[in-house]
Amino acid sequence: MTEFDLIARYFTRPFAADGLVACGIGDDCALLDSGENMLAVTTDLLVEGRHFAPSVDAASLGHKALAVNLSDLAAAGASPRCFFLALALPRADSAWLAGFSHGMFALADAHGCVLAGGDTTRSPAASPGDGPICVCITAIGEVPRSMIRTRAGARVGDDIWVSDRLGGAALALAHRNGVTDELTPIEAGACATRLNRPEPRIPLGVALRGIATACIDVSDGLLGDLGHILSRSQCGARIHWKDLPRQPGLSAQPADLHARCLLAGGDDYELLFTAAADRRERVQAAATAAGVPVTRIGAITDGRDLVVLDGQGLPMDTPFKAYDHFG
Amino acid sequence: MTEFDLIARYFTRPFAADGLVACGIGDDCALLDSGENMLAVTTDLLVEGRHFAPSVDAASLGHKALAVNLSDLAAAGASPRCFFLALALPRADSAWLAGFSHGMFALADAHGCVLAGGDTTRSPAASPGDGPICVCITAIGEVPRSMIRTRAGARVGDDIWVSDRLGGAALALAHRNGVTDELTPIEAGACATRLNRPEPRIPLGVALRGIATACIDVSDGLLGDLGHILSRSQCGARIHWKDLPRQPGLSAQPADLHARCLLAGGDDYELLFTAAADRRERVQAAATAAGVPVTRIGAITDGRDLVVLDGQGLPMDTPFKAYDHFG
Repeated sequence: MTEFDLIARYFTRPFAADGLVACGIGDDCALLDSGENMLAVTTDLLVEGRHFAPSVDAASLGHKALAVNLSDLAAAGASPRCFFLALALPRADSAWLAGFSHGMFALADAHGCVLAGGDTTRSPAASPGDGPICVCITAIGEVPRSMIRTRAGARVGDDIWVSDRLGGAALALAHRNGVTDELTPIEAGACATRLNRPEPRIPLGVALRGIATACIDVSDGLLGDLGHILSRSQCGARIHWKDLPRQPGLSAQPADLHARCLLAGGDDYELLFTAAADRRERVQAAATAAGVPVTRIGAITDGRDLVVLDGQGLPMDTPFKAYDHFG
Repeated sequence: MTEFDLIARYFTRPFAADGLVACGIGDDCALLDSGENMLAVTTDLLVEGRHFAPSVDAASLGHKALAVNLSDLAAAGASPRCFFLALALPRADSAWLAGFSHGMFALADAHGCVLAGGDTTRSPAASPGDGPICVCITAIGEVPRSMIRTRAGARVGDDIWVSDRLGGAALALAHRNGVTDELTPIEAGACATRLNRPEPRIPLGVALRGIATACIDVSDGLLGDLGHILSRSQCGARIHWKDLPRQPGLSAQPADLHARCLLAGGDDYELLFTAAADRRERVQAAATAAGVPVTRIGAITDGRDLVVLDGQGLPMDTPFKAYDHFG
């Protein structure tokens, strides 16, 4: 049973939009009807030992726990407004709490997002160690009713774009785990920043309102997340291997690691989006206004296949799937 | 550092209501401005080994994880609309998932509350056992703008009321832990139901709109939760020991256990509320309409003290505090 099977089998039910819930399970955010605006709501749970190492510094964790939620709001084109924090800790450690709250609030303040409520509890002591740190954040943003954007709007012929670069977070993990040592200290530091301090692409998400037809944030890997757009939009795609924007240092890695980080590396939190081919100038203008580069990496096609083309235009063998927590 | 110190020190900041967030940290729910209605939002994190035993059946856990959130909505007088589920599991166990989702959806359906989104992940394996199950639910309800109710509205002279009865969940824990064996099987079963399947008092919470001046759900214990109302409403209270509605079997317990379960037992999820003394008939009518008994247990007083009076009207010594996760 995969994570997606699990959700489909036990937690997905026939959905009928009612007064409040306009869009439910299956997108980066749910959409709640709030009069003039829609409220985009998303929740993410980070568990020590699974999503972050016990050694990660508290400020980075505070940043990342909020960032992964704001990234979902960015995909939906929503402006962050408030968030809710549920936190389980093995003990009340002042230095840790000061760091965590500092990292979290620094990001929240940068995006005008207010902590509106929460829950604090102690995680159980597990012999011989401590109970894990668990952080669950639910974030709420606003998007004008006429500007809502989901994963379902991609159309045949649309361009496929991605912001900034891919593969850095996965390369950081590979480096940390000793899979590769072929990184300069500067490259390794940049990768670690990608992993520990992802930057939610809120300004780009907002600037792409009315331009992008579908959008998702790359949290499970390029192919897997593009697959979500294709599945929801009922279309196929071809992307060009040579056009994919790469984390510095990635190209010098062994071919297998290179491909795995680039095509299936999670945790980059870049925006992957589609837009009509006659909107290229508007996409570039939005990216310039948002201060983040974007790269056109392929196109939406008829059918259901997701094809990666190599430098010669031939289909590559890409045995990668989306990251699956239960795989 | 107590749980409340921790929140005050690291997570509470000067609050200015902005366009969306009308009421933030410090109440059962945050209130978001959504045009005609306010949205009440609450979040609770349950961690295995802390909030529930590994042996608890999955359906009860699914029920309780949602119930504790709906109980917060009840305190705010909100009607449940939707919720978000974040779930960390050591493995994808079909029987467990079927039970959990069944228990959760049965309660959700009973209250017209839709699962609108979530996050599913695997908790890390901790040697030698499995990672803990973590369940974080964020629930959203609606309340008419003119009917919002917080912990801050109690006024000197108000009656203090509590729904149904207290002490059952704490007595169940005491029984499970071998602290007492003086319960009949029927009493013990009733206590276990209080602990494992709390009933969120949504109909009563809604029926008390415009009648109750302040309200909280009893999750940390009567004295502690009444203390939250007093602190936010800047007043005192006297309550009458003999008037407190008790779980059957509680009166026969040793005096110390009896007092501890009744005054400081958490997890009952009854509504504790205040109302003007000239509203007694309306309170009783609301309770009758909601199908749950209510009992008048005391009154709001000038000053800041919380006094429990014994059968002779003399102040009792009550060395109990609210449950503190970090105490």
